[in-house]
Amino acid sequence: MKSVLRTRRSLIDLDDIAEDELHEVFARATAFDRSRPEKRLSGVACVNLFFEPSTRTFTSFNLAEIRLGAELVNLTPKDLSYINKGETIEDTVVTLAAMGVSVLVIRHPEEGFPRSVAAHFDGHVVNAGDGTNAHPTQALLDLYTMLREFETLQGRTVAIVGDVLHSRVAHSLIAGLQRLSAGTVLVGPPAFVPEEYATEGVRVSRDLDAVLPSVDVVVLLRIQRERFAAMPLADEEYVARYRLNAERLALLPSQAVVMHPGPYNRGVELDESVLRFAGWRYAQQVVYGVSVRMAVLDFLVNGT
Amino acid sequence: MKSVLRTRRSLIDLDDIAEDELHEVFARATAFDRSRPEKRLSGVACVNLFFEPSTRTFTSFNLAEIRLGAELVNLTPKDLSYINKGETIEDTVVTLAAMGVSVLVIRHPEEGFPRSVAAHFDGHVVNAGDGTNAHPTQALLDLYTMLREFETLQGRTVAIVGDVLHSRVAHSLIAGLQRLSAGTVLVGPPAFVPEEYATEGVRVSRDLDAVLPSVDVVVLLRIQRERFAAMPLADEEYVARYRLNAERLALLPSQAVVMHPGPYNRGVELDESVLRFAGWRYAQQVVYGVSVRMAVLDFLVNGT
Amino acid sequence: MKSVLRTRRSLIDLDDIAEDELHEVFARATAFDRSRPEKRLSGVACVNLFFEPSTRTFTSFNLAEIRLGAELVNLTPKDLSYINKGETIEDTVVTLAAMGVSVLVIRHPEEGFPRSVAAHFDGHVVNAGDGTNAHPTQALLDLYTMLREFETLQGRTVAIVGDVLHSRVAHSLIAGLQRLSAGTVLVGPPAFVPEEYATEGVRVSRDLDAVLPSVDVVVLLRIQRERFAAMPLADEEYVARYRLNAERLALLPSQAVVMHPGPYNRGVELDESVLRFAGWRYAQQVVYGVSVRMAVLDFLVNGT
Repeated sequence: MKSVLRTRRSLIDLDDIAEDELHEVFARATAFDRSRPEKRLSGVACVNLFFEPSTRTFTSFNLAEIRLGAELVNLTPKDLSYINKGETIEDTVVTLAAMGVSVLVIRHPEEGFPRSVAAHFDGHVVNAGDGTNAHPTQALLDLYTMLREFETLQGRTVAIVGDVLHSRVAHSLIAGLQRLSAGTVLVGPPAFVPEEYATEGVRVSRDLDAVLPSVDVVVLLRIQRERFAAMPLADEEYVARYRLNAERLALLPSQAVVMHPGPYNRGVELDESVLRFAGWRYAQQVVYGVSVRMAVLDFLVNGT
Repeated sequence: MKSVLRTRRSLIDLDDIAEDELHEVFARATAFDRSRPEKRLSGVACVNLFFEPSTRTFTSFNLAEIRLGAELVNLTPKDLSYINKGETIEDTVVTLAAMGVSVLVIRHPEEGFPRSVAAHFDGHVVNAGDGTNAHPTQALLDLYTMLREFETLQGRTVAIVGDVLHSRVAHSLIAGLQRLSAGTVLVGPPAFVPEEYATEGVRVSRDLDAVLPSVDVVVLLRIQRERFAAMPLADEEYVARYRLNAERLALLPSQAVVMHPGPYNRGVELDESVLRFAGWRYAQQVVYGVSVRMAVLDFLVNGT
Repeated sequence: MKSVLRTRRSLIDLDDIAEDELHEVFARATAFDRSRPEKRLSGVACVNLFFEPSTRTFTSFNLAEIRLGAELVNLTPKDLSYINKGETIEDTVVTLAAMGVSVLVIRHPEEGFPRSVAAHFDGHVVNAGDGTNAHPTQALLDLYTMLREFETLQGRTVAIVGDVLHSRVAHSLIAGLQRLSAGTVLVGPPAFVPEEYATEGVRVSRDLDAVLPSVDVVVLLRIQRERFAAMPLADEEYVARYRLNAERLALLPSQAVVMHPGPYNRGVELDESVLRFAGWRYAQQVVYGVSVRMAVLDFLVNGT
């Protein structure tokens, strides 16, 4: 069995999918939302390889694969050296491909790990989160949720608030918002939102209160305390300036919605008033998460 | 997505099910014992969330769910903080509900954990054991096994022998025996069977030999050494007074049966003669365990 | 439920299967390779009980079971005491049998563990590797790969090179090669290939270069560093004498093939030239692994 020219599509980050393909994926998600699909991954073996703990993403991918009728194996290594006994990861994935595994869904604490796997795997790799780098299916479901709310994102403004620096979700989402021509404003202290993030279509602001009156979507982020040593500013200062609460919700335009990739920390980036806010779309994001993941898997495996 | 009035049934303890419903569940278990059911949980997503190790209960629930055709995801957190990254369990279960998860089967070392989850979950929670509190599906399969032996438990006497205090199985079983009007006698030293357990229909005895000649069922319990610091009496004294052995089996009426929720410890609460005893019903309990769990899941999800 | 005379077949080592049965298993594997079988294990419950980490064998058995339509439960104990709370393993497997589990696939670090389980389990046990003792399904897929290459192994010579002493694969493979009347030569330093391995049909050699010109198959082995305290010779010496490389490949007859049970360690027992060698059959072994395991399961459960 020789190495083959890789013609199989992977989704490591938003760069791997063109704009018209994005809309194709979203159209399938809508179809899957409306009715259970026939078993479009019947006989297709998927391995979920999660090197980091996960409840929501793990469960969401499992349900997506089950509902598409895939052959499903979960590998959840107890430690990072677990899987290979001195073998390179390249050789491990060649082995999985030989077994007939077509899809690898990978979560890993190292940035770039899924990309390096995809370079050697004769199949489809879906990045389910790599370190602080990217989490494209979360970004897709966030974009999809916004598009269900507003038909287009052109002319709309999305504020991403909080620990952008350590958030793989934010990194993928910013790329997606640029692709869909939304205006983006990143809001947080310099330690979480470095000035260098400002670019074509992307502004940086330190002042949440000033930003809120002109945004259509607020995406709140969790502070990723497991990814840095010391909190770069006092918790009270962070909360005072950036927590979304009833007063700040009142600053939003009437059609605005609030989203969060989860898990959210009550009392830190949001308070209870957000959970009762009519525009809170967290549960809707989770609902769409399964159908968007189904659509991604179907798109990668079965094509257009 | 607003919070909804909870109309979905859970099974946290025996209190959650009325007497006529008990018999309905048992009737379904009998039907499932006789022939494989159609896939009555087809398209129903079940998550098994086991925070404590388990072989028999975990496998039994898995087989029950598979045989009913459910969509099945196993989450077995490596530690108790694993699943939430600062998120409350309430928010975690809201997330699972949004994904379309309808059934949560939960084992947890803390008493009351499944009940607090059920208060927030828009779906069905089945308690698969919480600390020393309750283990209702084990109690149901024990009751079912007794009812297959004796048509009714009215007028029958059941002895529960050993570490009642730390046994969630015993706590649920006592409630079930009261519901079915059986006489119950709890047998063991004061450290394992406090006097306060005596109540309507429930006696306490320190003397196994005196009890055995008038019982129909003996339920043996394992000493739950992982749930207390020091053994409250010498092992030899416990064994001398409470181990079931050939001499004590000879004291039983001829129709009496012996049961154990498992796992059993040979040489402690029983010796080998029990395993060869014609009335030993352990394997039968395990057989019925799968069909009783199928019946519980079907009853909760599909109703009467 | 009494203990029954065990009439169910297990596969603990190559001794458990007669020569004509080997060929029957191989014929089924070929059929399964050609087309997806009907669900021949529909309604058959299989438990995979892996006490050691495993990627390839675990995934291969999972896919084999899924493709045969089995009811599948994975138990991967976090530690060796995990499953039983003082219960004997004999009692645990009696419990699994009572639940209707028909097949146990077991990997365990102790030699003899699967055999002792099979003595008590009223079902089929498949050894997926026990310590340094045996790994029969790997040996079967190795033999099958050889037979797909050469119609018969009679008159053929197979060299097994490296850490034979600690390799359960090698131990099972040697038995299989004897069964199929192949000539076998074990090549390595005395610490890895003790003189006592020489027996009917099995030679021992210290000189890989002298052996290569007259062999049909080379099976390379990984040094099982996790199974001994100190490397018995310098790494450089091992590599100098036993690593397969381009010069040594050139010594092979033109039809010869090279195999490895995996995982392989680049730079130790082989270098990159082996991975590009036309006769390198590693991926083919993995491909056949799934169909051979399907054939074994089908043969044990459904018979001839």
